Amino acid sequence: MTKPFMFEKPVGMRDTLPELYTLRQQVRSTIADEVALWGYAPIATPALEFYDTIGEASATSDTQLFKLLDQQGHTLVLRPDMTAPIARIAASTLKDVQRPARLTYDANVFRAQQREGGKPAEFEQVGVELIGDGTASADGEVIALMIAALKKTGLSGFKVAIGHIGFVNTLLQEILGNEERAGTFRRYLYEKNYVGFKHAVRQLPLSSIDRQRLTGLLNLRGGFEILEDAAGLVETQAGSAALDELRSLLDVLRAYGLENDIIIDLNLVMHMSYYTGMVFEAYSEELGFPLGGGGRYDGLLEKFHRPEPATGFAVRLDRLTEALGRAKEEVTVSNCIIYSNERRGEAMKKAASLREEGRSVVMQDVRGIADLDAYSQQFDDVHYLIGSNGAGGGAPYDG
Amino acid sequence: MTKPFMFEKPVGMRDTLPELYTLRQQVRSTIADEVALWGYAPIATPALEFYDTIGEASATSDTQLFKLLDQQGHTLVLRPDMTAPIARIAASTLKDVQRPARLTYDANVFRAQQREGGKPAEFEQVGVELIGDGTASADGEVIALMIAALKKTGLSGFKVAIGHIGFVNTLLQEILGNEERAGTFRRYLYEKNYVGFKHAVRQLPLSSIDRQRLTGLLNLRGGFEILEDAAGLVETQAGSAALDELRSLLDVLRAYGLENDIIIDLNLVMHMSYYTGMVFEAYSEELGFPLGGGGRYDGLLEKFHRPEPATGFAVRLDRLTEALGRAKEEVTVSNCIIYSNERRGEAMKKAASLREEGRSVVMQDVRGIADLDAYSQQFDDVHYLIGSNGAGGGAPYDG
Repeated sequence: MTKPFMFEKPVGMRDTLPELYTLRQQVRSTIADEVALWGYAPIATPALEFYDTIGEASATSDTQLFKLLDQQGHTLVLRPDMTAPIARIAASTLKDVQRPARLTYDANVFRAQQREGGKPAEFEQVGVELIGDGTASADGEVIALMIAALKKTGLSGFKVAIGHIGFVNTLLQEILGNEERAGTFRRYLYEKNYVGFKHAVRQLPLSSIDRQRLTGLLNLRGGFEILEDAAGLVETQAGSAALDELRSLLDVLRAYGLENDIIIDLNLVMHMSYYTGMVFEAYSEELGFPLGGGGRYDGLLEKFHRPEPATGFAVRLDRLTEALGRAKEEVTVSNCIIYSNERRGEAMKKAASLREEGRSVVMQDVRGIADLDAYSQQFDDVHYLIGSNGAGGGAPYDG
Repeated sequence: MTKPFMFEKPVGMRDTLPELYTLRQQVRSTIADEVALWGYAPIATPALEFYDTIGEASATSDTQLFKLLDQQGHTLVLRPDMTAPIARIAASTLKDVQRPARLTYDANVFRAQQREGGKPAEFEQVGVELIGDGTASADGEVIALMIAALKKTGLSGFKVAIGHIGFVNTLLQEILGNEERAGTFRRYLYEKNYVGFKHAVRQLPLSSIDRQRLTGLLNLRGGFEILEDAAGLVETQAGSAALDELRSLLDVLRAYGLENDIIIDLNLVMHMSYYTGMVFEAYSEELGFPLGGGGRYDGLLEKFHRPEPATGFAVRLDRLTEALGRAKEEVTVSNCIIYSNERRGEAMKKAASLREEGRSVVMQDVRGIADLDAYSQQFDDVHYLIGSNGAGGGAPYDG
C-alpha cells in the first residue's frame, strides 16, 4: 500500500544534500570564528518553548507559529526567532552575568507557511545579541561585526541599509494621528509596497503639506546626506532624537571605515515588531531579499522583568549560502579502496595511512558492490586490492 | 502581570550555556572530521516530517512523539530519530546514487517526556548510515568508525557491546512460541530488567530445559567465547545464521585491531525496533547509560519501496560531552579593550591587530558599562584606552 506522503515533506520543509551542506558548514564556521574573535559567547536554546513566553514576545504573527500541546496541556511553539529565547535566558539564568553581555547563537528557526511558495518553514540563523549597552558604539559594533563576518565568507557586492524604526513611527504618528493608521503605512513599508503606500496617501483627508511629508519619507534613501532631508520632515523631539542617534551611529561606522558598505534607508521596517531604534538589513546585488539584519530592541527585556537596552543581528544562512553560490574549491580528492576479504588488512593499512594525511578515503568490500564499474566512477582515485596476494596480483583491478 | 511560565521551558527542554556549548562544538567537529575522512557525505533533513511517513517508520512509541497539525490538516511529527528520514531520502532523492552509499548527519531529535525526570526531550545525535551493503565488512566499518571517532574526542575507558537482535528474536520465538510473549521478554531485556525477566520465566509453564535456555540467555555476556555458549542454546537455522554473522563481524573487528574495545552482549535489545541483525552500544565506565550505538536494519528501506540492506550508528552528543567532562584546555585568553569616545580609533586598531593574531577581544565603550570594576574582572587581560590622548594618558585606567 502506497501511503499518500511516502516521500513528501511538509510545506516549506527542505532536505539539504551533501554539496550544499558542505558549503553551508564552511560559511557557518567562518562566521562563528569571526564572532568568537569579537568576544561573543555561544549559547543554545530548545526548539520548543512555551507559547505564553516566547510565542508572544517574539512578535511573530500567530499564523506563522507552529503550535502544539504538550502532555500537560500547555501550548508550545517551535521558536520563530532566537532573540526572544535569548532575552529569556539573559533575564533569568544569565541575569547575574556582567553587562554588557555578548552572546551568539546558530540555530534553526521555524515559520509556518500557508503554501509551498518557495519560502522555507525552517531555516538556520546565525546571530549575536549585545545586551545591556544603549550606546551607539554597541549598535555600530553589531553592524560592523555583521559586515566583517559576511566579508570573511567571501561575500562581496553587498550593502547594509540602515534605518530607524523610532523615526518612522514618530513621523507616521505626527502626520496620521493614530496608531492604527500608522500601522497600515508601516505595513506597506515592511512589504516594500511603495505603490500601495502612495495610493493610501491619496485616500486620506490630509493637508497637501502632510501628503508631501508622507511621500517625502519614501525618498529618504541614499547617502549620509539623507539625514538632513529627514530633519526637515519631523517636528517632534522624538524625531530629532532618532536622527541624532543615527548621526552618532554613522560616526562609529565611519571610524570602522565602513562608509562604502552602508546606505541610509529611512523606509526600512523589519519583520519583528520588537525593534525600537536603529534597524538594518544586508542586501546582496544578486539576490532580491535580505541576507540578514537586525536592530535595537530596548523594550524586549522588560517583558522578562529586566528592562535593559539591547541590540543584535541575525544572518540567514540559507540565503547567504545561495548568494555565495557553489563552494569555490572542492578541497578533498575522493579516494576509494576496493578490497577482497583476503586483502582486508592491506586495505586497512592503506586507508589509515591516507586518512593520517587528512585525505578522505572510502574503504569498500568488493562483495558489497552490485555494479563495480558504476560504483568506481564516482571517485577521483580508486585502489583495487583484490585477489589472493598483494604482489601485484588481482589484475585487472589492481591500481 | 507575571505570566505562569515567564522563565520556564517545556518538560525536558534545555538551554546550553557557553562553556558546555564550546566543549560540545569541539566534540561535534572532531567527530565530523573523522567521519569525513572515512568518506561519508553529510546531509540534513527537516525537523518536521509527516507522521504517516516518518512517525511510523521510526518505530518510536506514539507517546514519545511530538505531534502537531499543519495548516492543511496533516499530522506532523518532530523527528524522533534520523535513520527514518535518511531512509526516506535514500529511497527518493538519492535513489540513483551508487550503492553502497555512505551518509552522515548531525541533528537534534525529539522525544516527548511525561515528566521532568532528567531525560532530555531534545538532544543532538551525530551518526552515519551505510546503505546498500549487507556484508559484515559494512557492519564492522560502522562500529570501527564509531570507536575511532569516540577515541578522537579523547574519550577513554569505554567498551562497545555487540549483540544480534535476530539471535534474541529467534531464541525467544523458539522457546516461547509466540511473538506476544517474545515481546514481553524483549522489553525486559531492553530495560535491562533482569530480575523482571527471571521472574517472568518462573511464571510461565515451561519445561525445565526451556527455562534454563531462557535464563541462560542472560549469561551470554563476555568475551568472544560467548558465541560458543550461545550456539548451544539455539536449535534453528536462523539462530545459527545469526551467530555466523557475528563470527564474521568479529573477524572484521579483529582485523581493525579492536579486540580490546569490544565485548559480546547477546542480551542487547535497542530502543528502535527497526533493527534486524547485529546491534551495538558504547558504554563509558563513568556513565550509567550508553553514549551511542546502532545496528543493522535491513527492513526499513522496504517501507520506502526500496528494499536494501543498511547499517549505521548514532552518538548522543549530550552524553558524550558529559562523559568527557570539562574542556581540557581553555584555549583563548580573553581580552577586553575599554575605551572612551576620543580614543575609539586607537581601540579599533588594537582590537583588529589582536584578532588578526587569532585572539578573542571584546571592544567596549566605557559609557556602556554600569560597574567598571565588576565588568573588568571577568577578563584575563584588560586594556584601558580612556582619556583625551594616547600618550600614556588616562591613568589610572591605562593598562
